Amino acid sequence: MIYFDNGATTFPKPFSVRKAVNDAMSNYGANPGRSGHIMSVKSSEIMFSCRENAAKLFGSANPENVIFTLNCTSALNTVIKGILKSGDHAVISSLEHNAVVRPLEALKKNKIEYSVAKCVPYDEEQTIENFRNEFKANTKLVICTHASNVFGVKLPIERIAALCRINGILFCVDAAQSAGIADINLSDSSIDYLCTAGHKGLYGPMGTGLLIINSETTPDSLIQGGTGSDSANLNQPEILPDKYESGTPNLPGIAGLNAGIKFVLNRKPNKIYNSELSLAQMLYKRLEKAENVILYTKMPEKNHSVPVISFNIKDTESETVAKILNDNYNIAVRAGLHCAPLAHKSFGTQDTGTVRAVVSAFTDKNDVIYFANAVRSISKNNKLKKTI
Amino acid sequence: MIYFDNGATTFPKPFSVRKAVNDAMSNYGANPGRSGHIMSVKSSEIMFSCRENAAKLFGSANPENVIFTLNCTSALNTVIKGILKSGDHAVISSLEHNAVVRPLEALKKNKIEYSVAKCVPYDEEQTIENFRNEFKANTKLVICTHASNVFGVKLPIERIAALCRINGILFCVDAAQSAGIADINLSDSSIDYLCTAGHKGLYGPMGTGLLIINSETTPDSLIQGGTGSDSANLNQPEILPDKYESGTPNLPGIAGLNAGIKFVLNRKPNKIYNSELSLAQMLYKRLEKAENVILYTKMPEKNHSVPVISFNIKDTESETVAKILNDNYNIAVRAGLHCAPLAHKSFGTQDTGTVRAVVSAFTDKNDVIYFANAVRSISKNNKLKKTI
Repeated sequence: MIYFDNGATTFPKPFSVRKAVNDAMSNYGANPGRSGHIMSVKSSEIMFSCRENAAKLFGSANPENVIFTLNCTSALNTVIKGILKSGDHAVISSLEHNAVVRPLEALKKNKIEYSVAKCVPYDEEQTIENFRNEFKANTKLVICTHASNVFGVKLPIERIAALCRINGILFCVDAAQSAGIADINLSDSSIDYLCTAGHKGLYGPMGTGLLIINSETTPDSLIQGGTGSDSANLNQPEILPDKYESGTPNLPGIAGLNAGIKFVLNRKPNKIYNSELSLAQMLYKRLEKAENVILYTKMPEKNHSVPVISFNIKDTESETVAKILNDNYNIAVRAGLHCAPLAHKSFGTQDTGTVRAVVSAFTDKNDVIYFANAVRSISKNNKLKKTI
Repeated sequence: MIYFDNGATTFPKPFSVRKAVNDAMSNYGANPGRSGHIMSVKSSEIMFSCRENAAKLFGSANPENVIFTLNCTSALNTVIKGILKSGDHAVISSLEHNAVVRPLEALKKNKIEYSVAKCVPYDEEQTIENFRNEFKANTKLVICTHASNVFGVKLPIERIAALCRINGILFCVDAAQSAGIADINLSDSSIDYLCTAGHKGLYGPMGTGLLIINSETTPDSLIQGGTGSDSANLNQPEILPDKYESGTPNLPGIAGLNAGIKFVLNRKPNKIYNSELSLAQMLYKRLEKAENVILYTKMPEKNHSVPVISFNIKDTESETVAKILNDNYNIAVRAGLHCAPLAHKSFGTQDTGTVRAVVSAFTDKNDVIYFANAVRSISKNNKLKKTI
């Protein structure tokens, strides 16, 4: 299959990732942090190695501040619900995923409110101004995606972070679509909480996510339970990472994530980014020339975009295009709203959705050429059909 | 390694489980339920197959009521926090794990209280009576372990379930230590919520847990986010399983869990149970005869015990015994409190902890003989040491 659904999860995974998962399953897969025997110790070491590598990748000073979660959604829920209390207010961007919007909607019953700051693509000043305009006396937290999972547009998170810091507001970044390709250096940043998926640009298995805490203010835990530490204490430990890691962790997944992060560190995020960006630009140019193809952004450009392209074919449902790509061309994409209705509202695509194509470190030029030709062919037929 | 730490996680995993994880990682690992292409559809099918097999194993009428979680702790937190509201009261047994106690402690700040009903091992009547005595007008939920993870003692959950039903109280079972070996038939039961781990007696990978809902009363969701369904709706969907499965699921883990549940269904839980019980009895008898070995329960007996044995060697810390077993005999056990301080308080071992040995479907008689001999040898040396 020609795989362009890397925005949902990257595929294939590096061989080292698959091997690491298999090793954990077959060779030492005991419960980490619970027992003292050599298999359990080996499991704990792999987990700590993954914390160290994640800390290295994101410039976090302390591996213990790297928390493993089921997915990015769990990490975001932990921050949102662990920080916001009754009477608080939050601000989010207009490009947020349902992983941010739905928890905030659920919190309305607890008298927690939120506002949406309009992101103006390619206009940092206006975007920053829009955030500032939404701040109120009770604004406690800003949550902002690093890059739209639908349109690839990046937000000026470091400037928003600085704005939050000046105003005494905590700042959380959703880096699900940017981790592994964007430079994030927490040690030199006012970002307080970084949430990301392990199974996208970090090339780990599905079932892994990260919350990296870069603040003295730690959210309340969302889930409590056995941590293998301070077991006689009926209260959840306050130390990190135990506070947020109750119950048995996804050891095989974390072993795979460790290998995935090493893969990214070895290749270097900016090299992966440059290579993916040039493929995305190549795809954009070819789609731009195709008749009946609608694009919603400018051509992806360095530092302002991640390699995510959304498009539609005129008068054809996005799901129909995806189905034809699958059935006739063996191409995998995702169609519809991509769990981000706010982003679609911003770009006027809430009724149609979009077809989304996302490249990975394993995509090559031939894939892009084949994909663009397939779309061109579908869009031509579409025109013929209309003429008849 | 001679592995007796099956109470923490079973090892080894069946070949079919390891193969299923590897297949998911290597051959079709796209995001389930998000896209319509064949890899994503295959992922969705595997997830649904796992729901069907879990429903079959536990006698649930509806596979959609089978919810995937990170672990049993997440499942228990979902029920506890999704059901109990300010002013409510809960009752738990005196053998509960911190996965139950710590969330309830955390809820105290929301004016939610709980009481502990004393479990009297081998005396069902008194145990039931103790539960009844803790009921108050505002008791909304009872949470009870099916079998102690420390001492293997089973609780009469069906009778407690019936008592709860009569009193209009919801009933949640923690089956982490019993699933896969105990008969649980939800279609013929008053259990409302069944929580279990996927990585113990179900032989799935770590990072998998199950919540099976057997009630019209569905808990509020603890985590909200993208579900790949009803994406334009800013509110979490109410349909099952989507209500509780936000963000990308642990697809490789669930593929492995599916193979694990099939392994259990093929071998049949009662056959696995009988075989494990006879090994546990054999181990118990041998430990009973060893000098300086302290046992805390009667010999494991059919229907009243799961094959979990806790012991100590007189005047030797449980952690020291575990370390000698690892270092000198290549045996894996767990020592300490096993995240269940309440259970230790019930058995008077809160200061010492215990050494815990748990057999699995892969343990054989030779393992038990080797293990018992190792303990005997350590306990003899211990006596010698004292004499000198």
